Amino acid sequence: MRWQDNLTVVLVETRNPLNIGAAARAMLNFGFTRMVLVAPYEVAFQEARSAVGAASVLASARVFPGLAEAVAGCTLVVGTASAGKRVFHQPRHLLPEAASRLRAHLERERAALLFGSEKFGLSNEHLSYCQWTVRIPTNSRCPSMNLGQAVALCCYEMARTTASGQAKGSLHRRAAADQLERIVARLSGVLDASGYINLRTRRSHLLKIRRLVRRLDLSPDDAQVLEGMLRQIDWKLARDNRKSGP
Amino acid sequence: MRWQDNLTVVLVETRNPLNIGAAARAMLNFGFTRMVLVAPYEVAFQEARSAVGAASVLASARVFPGLAEAVAGCTLVVGTASAGKRVFHQPRHLLPEAASRLRAHLERERAALLFGSEKFGLSNEHLSYCQWTVRIPTNSRCPSMNLGQAVALCCYEMARTTASGQAKGSLHRRAAADQLERIVARLSGVLDASGYINLRTRRSHLLKIRRLVRRLDLSPDDAQVLEGMLRQIDWKLARDNRKSGP
Repeated sequence: MRWQDNLTVVLVETRNPLNIGAAARAMLNFGFTRMVLVAPYEVAFQEARSAVGAASVLASARVFPGLAEAVAGCTLVVGTASAGKRVFHQPRHLLPEAASRLRAHLERERAALLFGSEKFGLSNEHLSYCQWTVRIPTNSRCPSMNLGQAVALCCYEMARTTASGQAKGSLHRRAAADQLERIVARLSGVLDASGYINLRTRRSHLLKIRRLVRRLDLSPDDAQVLEGMLRQIDWKLARDNRKSGP
Repeated sequence: MRWQDNLTVVLVETRNPLNIGAAARAMLNFGFTRMVLVAPYEVAFQEARSAVGAASVLASARVFPGLAEAVAGCTLVVGTASAGKRVFHQPRHLLPEAASRLRAHLERERAALLFGSEKFGLSNEHLSYCQWTVRIPTNSRCPSMNLGQAVALCCYEMARTTASGQAKGSLHRRAAADQLERIVARLSGVLDASGYINLRTRRSHLLKIRRLVRRLDLSPDDAQVLEGMLRQIDWKLARDNRKSGP
């Protein structure tokens, strides 16, 4: 069993079908599949079911009249709530820490993560089922998040632990010194032919060009392309010079 | 100036007013205020403006017909794209690393973060303006995210990163997007005049040149030097062409 299958996302009294659909899609984006709805607006749920994008999550979503039945079987129940001026009776954890606690739990046992209605959030009654709550660290001037976005953030943060583990640094290959030096030579030639380089300051110009080409931090492929461009420009300038003569 | 004010969130060809509103709200949730729309569906933008919740962001949002104007002045342009089977021409970073790179940049300079249309995402043409792209580590079975949720994740992750902690890598200044675009134009002109660019493949060449110039990762000074070189070569080629005649 995958750890994601141990999570139940519980939407309580959701009103907007678009939010149900958006929540389902965000779950799937991060590999979660179990959704439960508590007392949703009937119309909202029907409309959401007919939406595309996350059909599998919505098709298997279960509906309960009350929260108690919805979270039965979960050994950890966690509520989400925006900051505001509310008094909380449960411990609160910021999302990054909350997600890693949830993740650790989900590796072994089932947990429920609760999201309240768009208008009122989770009531104190709802929160009373929770061991602790999550605070998403939003700006105090606009603390309340869109429901679908809050679900997305929580799912992302739980999945993130491994995701960032897999993140590899960008170890892309670099052009070799001799290849770079050919570019320096070509570019100098082109600039000579164009009258960009003053003869008196030629030596210092060459150093500047060499340093510039080093700074470009070229890959072997890009170096080859650039060399080809310069070769063609060089050829064209030489031909024109022969044509127009001294 | 707060670091958040250095970020421009750019929505390209967005269709759904709800997504524009959701993106604006997610921005405010994490303290971001600058939104730019490129060629949005007119109706969508008007409807979004009349929505509640993130009025300040939408009221000050600017609209541009094209991407080049929208990102002018930004010294880093980053695109978002879902996984899929697409071939990418730019370096890709997973969101956690991408956010810390962006954050480090925003502490000092302006950056743009691009989101494509709901249906098509960002095109290769759009991505050719980007130095690199972000990959949100979604599940391969449902990789594509809802627009508002993707904006929320990126904003959250940038705000989450503590500047002191993870700001690493290149701390040198970068050329702005409009300066890079002038180099692209000059280089294309020079290559045209040299016969490097085949008329039939001109369009794909332009994209390649734009991507190449982005990869060079130029400082403002180097960009100025390069522009000067190209201007001179251009002038010389034009003069030679006049001399040798048709």
